[in-house]
Amino acid sequence: MQVLPATGSMSFPMARRTPTSPQTEALELLRGARRVLLTGHERPDGDCLGAQVALSRVVRALGGEARVLNPDPHEPQYDYLAEHCDLAAWDGEPLPDNDLCVLLDCGELERTGPLAPLLAAADSPKLVIDHHVPSGREWWDAAYVDATCAATGLLVRRIAAELDVELDAAGAAGVFTSIVTDTGWFRHGNTDAETLRVAGELVERGVRPNELYRAIFQRRSRDHPRDVAQALSAVEYHAGDRLAVADVRDPGDGRVEAMDTADVLDLLRAVQAVEVALLLREVEPGVVKLSARSKTDYDVCALARRFGGGGHVRAAGGRVHGAPEDVKARVVAAALEALGVR
Amino acid sequence: MQVLPATGSMSFPMARRTPTSPQTEALELLRGARRVLLTGHERPDGDCLGAQVALSRVVRALGGEARVLNPDPHEPQYDYLAEHCDLAAWDGEPLPDNDLCVLLDCGELERTGPLAPLLAAADSPKLVIDHHVPSGREWWDAAYVDATCAATGLLVRRIAAELDVELDAAGAAGVFTSIVTDTGWFRHGNTDAETLRVAGELVERGVRPNELYRAIFQRRSRDHPRDVAQALSAVEYHAGDRLAVADVRDPGDGRVEAMDTADVLDLLRAVQAVEVALLLREVEPGVVKLSARSKTDYDVCALARRFGGGGHVRAAGGRVHGAPEDVKARVVAAALEALGVR
Repeated sequence: MQVLPATGSMSFPMARRTPTSPQTEALELLRGARRVLLTGHERPDGDCLGAQVALSRVVRALGGEARVLNPDPHEPQYDYLAEHCDLAAWDGEPLPDNDLCVLLDCGELERTGPLAPLLAAADSPKLVIDHHVPSGREWWDAAYVDATCAATGLLVRRIAAELDVELDAAGAAGVFTSIVTDTGWFRHGNTDAETLRVAGELVERGVRPNELYRAIFQRRSRDHPRDVAQALSAVEYHAGDRLAVADVRDPGDGRVEAMDTADVLDLLRAVQAVEVALLLREVEPGVVKLSARSKTDYDVCALARRFGGGGHVRAAGGRVHGAPEDVKARVVAAALEALGVR
Repeated sequence: MQVLPATGSMSFPMARRTPTSPQTEALELLRGARRVLLTGHERPDGDCLGAQVALSRVVRALGGEARVLNPDPHEPQYDYLAEHCDLAAWDGEPLPDNDLCVLLDCGELERTGPLAPLLAAADSPKLVIDHHVPSGREWWDAAYVDATCAATGLLVRRIAAELDVELDAAGAAGVFTSIVTDTGWFRHGNTDAETLRVAGELVERGVRPNELYRAIFQRRSRDHPRDVAQALSAVEYHAGDRLAVADVRDPGDGRVEAMDTADVLDLLRAVQAVEVALLLREVEPGVVKLSARSKTDYDVCALARRFGGGGHVRAAGGRVHGAPEDVKARVVAAALEALGVR
């Protein structure tokens, strides 16, 4: 597989390492390292964890040893990845000895949370492998970055090919997990030809899509259907059904904060006319959690920012202080304004 | 791409045409035909329609003309396919003149409903292209069948490759529609390497997965979230949560019969402990519609058959006569018995 230039059409401050391409340098670091520390961002997601598992198999195939150490533990839905690779969470100890630190799925040192000062102080070279648009200062020694790539795990798949390493079944499960996490199981706009072709190759290497789907997504609690019902029963539409709003009040048992909201937001977006879906949850008295999703170019991140939150163009959120009715009125008014409706 | 033998390991009564392989004969028929009639089963689904659109482009690329004529109209969610290919439904007229009839996505003539006697009486040769296990009598002249293939559209993709035809954007959209319809958007157990690799190739030919997802699946009515909420709020669990049952009563407005049940059944199956999900809808007084889904090897078709219904191992249903409470008690008792619970 062809490795695309990491810089692509972005302006990416790599000049000081010219003429060695950043990819070549990244590959050299990986080829030469014997004790590799793999880390990621706080609350590591499926892309971060899957890419770590896959890279750990690549390092092992090259004769090295990899250890994963994340700022936070993994969610239980990724237990199947931990069967093949210890996914450790930092517990306050010094970093394990290593001759290379690799940060996967983010480029900002700060996003490693409590690990940031330890990484900054480590003597070993630092490598970033990421598919987000680079921002912040260039603190690393080498970077393998392509912001047009659907998942960090796909970058690890490219690296494996460049290093002539065939992914084994565990590595394939890692890359597949990365892909399905970051493409919404092949539904989002970043699902490109490489994504699907590589997924096919991973199935050949032993991945069973239906089993991974069950492991990752069919893990809801028995209360989940009723929680979804509660949220959906209160749906309100505005602006000719272009805006759907559901809100849920906390009866005081903490379940509203814990609820998995993805299904509610998916169902609201499934309504043909709906362009923007908002879910408001009173998670404690006077605090409302806003989750916003868009299925058009409508920028829900801009909306969330008006209330102190943030995120991406199509998925954003935040915590808003105020009485639930009042918060709802303010958020709906702002959303309608952004939709061009008074 | 390699074309697998259509017969595979199945016993398929092709002996009388030996030594010509059935695929070769199918390809010859397609290569030689000038006016090709494409048809399918009653209530044609996305696989049937997508395969027809793709094959119509192949016939055109070979210099012929294809007309699609189905026993029933297509659902509006497939309007985007009809933009590139007239998807006609039979209106009582004689069959259009043709020198080849092709039946896609089923092998039984009877499943073409009112078209069956017309097809049987037609002089032109008959070709079946299908991925179901063949059953019934061999009424066709040639068959291109592989029951291990995930979708009929994938067979058309193989046929195109054998005939050296490159699929255009419309043909690619057809095959992609076939694939995602029959694999549950890459989630079911039939999602194999070919499925994903071909999907990647189709994206290269212009398919945008997120736009097709929106066109096919994000078309619900504004009432849909509340309908789902109504069904989910009544969920009951049995057998240590291995069985989930939701039932809905018709308030007399016909909406319960019309409701799209896929989301309800998906959400019930998303509960980790649930192996079998049942949805019971009183669609008219004294008539209950049963929809059953399994996420294990539990055979819901056997369950549905006990109540006069049918289907597949993991998805089945039927109409049961009786008072809703009584039907529920009987269905739950039968389901528990099959789960090995008293």
